[in-house]
Amino acid sequence: MDRSAEFRRWKAQCLSKADLSRKGSVDEDVVELVQLLNGREQFFTTSSCAGRIILLDRGINGSEVQKQNCCWLLVTHKPCVKDDVIVALKKANGDAILKFEPLVLHVQCRQLQDAQILAVRSTHGLEVPLTHKGKLMVTEEYINFLIKIANQKMEENKKRIERFYNCLQHALEKETISMTSYPKEKIKEKNNSSYTHKKKRNPEKACGKYITEENNKELENDDHDDPGISVTIFPEDY
Amino acid sequence: MDRSAEFRRWKAQCLSKADLSRKGSVDEDVVELVQLLNGREQFFTTSSCAGRIILLDRGINGSEVQKQNCCWLLVTHKPCVKDDVIVALKKANGDAILKFEPLVLHVQCRQLQDAQILAVRSTHGLEVPLTHKGKLMVTEEYINFLIKIANQKMEENKKRIERFYNCLQHALEKETISMTSYPKEKIKEKNNSSYTHKKKRNPEKACGKYITEENNKELENDDHDDPGISVTIFPEDY
Repeated sequence: MDRSAEFRRWKAQCLSKADLSRKGSVDEDVVELVQLLNGREQFFTTSSCAGRIILLDRGINGSEVQKQNCCWLLVTHKPCVKDDVIVALKKANGDAILKFEPLVLHVQCRQLQDAQILAVRSTHGLEVPLTHKGKLMVTEEYINFLIKIANQKMEENKKRIERFYNCLQHALEKETISMTSYPKEKIKEKNNSSYTHKKKRNPEKACGKYITEENNKELENDDHDDPGISVTIFPEDY
Repeated sequence: MDRSAEFRRWKAQCLSKADLSRKGSVDEDVVELVQLLNGREQFFTTSSCAGRIILLDRGINGSEVQKQNCCWLLVTHKPCVKDDVIVALKKANGDAILKFEPLVLHVQCRQLQDAQILAVRSTHGLEVPLTHKGKLMVTEEYINFLIKIANQKMEENKKRIERFYNCLQHALEKETISMTSYPKEKIKEKNNSSYTHKKKRNPEKACGKYITEENNKELENDDHDDPGISVTIFPEDY
């Protein structure tokens, strides 16, 4: 079986499908990153979120609210405004929670080695209960304070996406050069060594340390002879 | 090179080292899970946390507070009491945050295939800013409300650890039986198929869907010819 050809066919099939997300399109802040990955034959993305601030209402009665007993009062991929949150909170009749969720990217890789270049750190966010059975549990001053924090995280997240894009682009370029002069085993060693040393020299500026490969059953097709592996990228800790 | 022997040697070396965590021992609620994994030749754990409620103080001045500009005002692996939180909050002079962190387990695997049995879902927690420059931003009633939520998450997390233990034990037993009657490729297919079908039949009760393998540079030794791979287990979403 030619795995490369099969991966190519699978990629084409997935990318030709309609975007089934609520929004129906890729978030502006990750368009370049998604294009960079999809432009390389060894990768394709299956889902992405640039990062968002959401206000959820978790209902007491499952039939009253949408999607797993939970409805979205507010979603924004941009810094949010206090008044929007205050207005949205008035619609809460259950337990409303404000969340910040950073970048998430699901990437399918042709083979294990292709996942070596992807820099990953653990998730980080904000998750604050605000109402209980529709009753606001905090002051407006606190909401203001909270929104400032969420917006700061959003800004920081955006910077990290840019940094990640630059690191990835650099790693992909380096890999292309390496491919022409090193046998496969050597490339892996070289990449590992490069990241390890980078981290030791300047841990703050290292592109990342974790590499995650997932057999994500939700994103996989039903074919057990799966022609690739799945990578989930989480941004660095704050 | 005999990879199995090398992995065995590496495992023995890691497990013989002193526990360098703040606590210095494995959390009570994951002792059985850690023992189950370490008792199998294809795995060993490098770090674990059963789940905890922590109160952090993030200082404005880096020199005033410990460990990355952040000090721990309270840590508990058991449900926590309001008065303890109130007392601890009085010590805050920066931005205090209450967090719930669910089970985290780092597992080294001998080979890629060994990671197939590990059920993984994304992280989930609670992260609530409570003070700003030492000033309390919420009411005592809210703190009470929040502690109830954190304690509920702690309880739910404990149930999930038990469920994960049972699923893992079941999968390991099944694998041992399969190993004697199927060639390697077949085992992998069989496991995948079993998980996928289970999920479709009863998504609520499925053991898990995600399998994560990490090249965790912090946990790895410096040997580039690494005799294993690393798996990070996160509990299911709430």
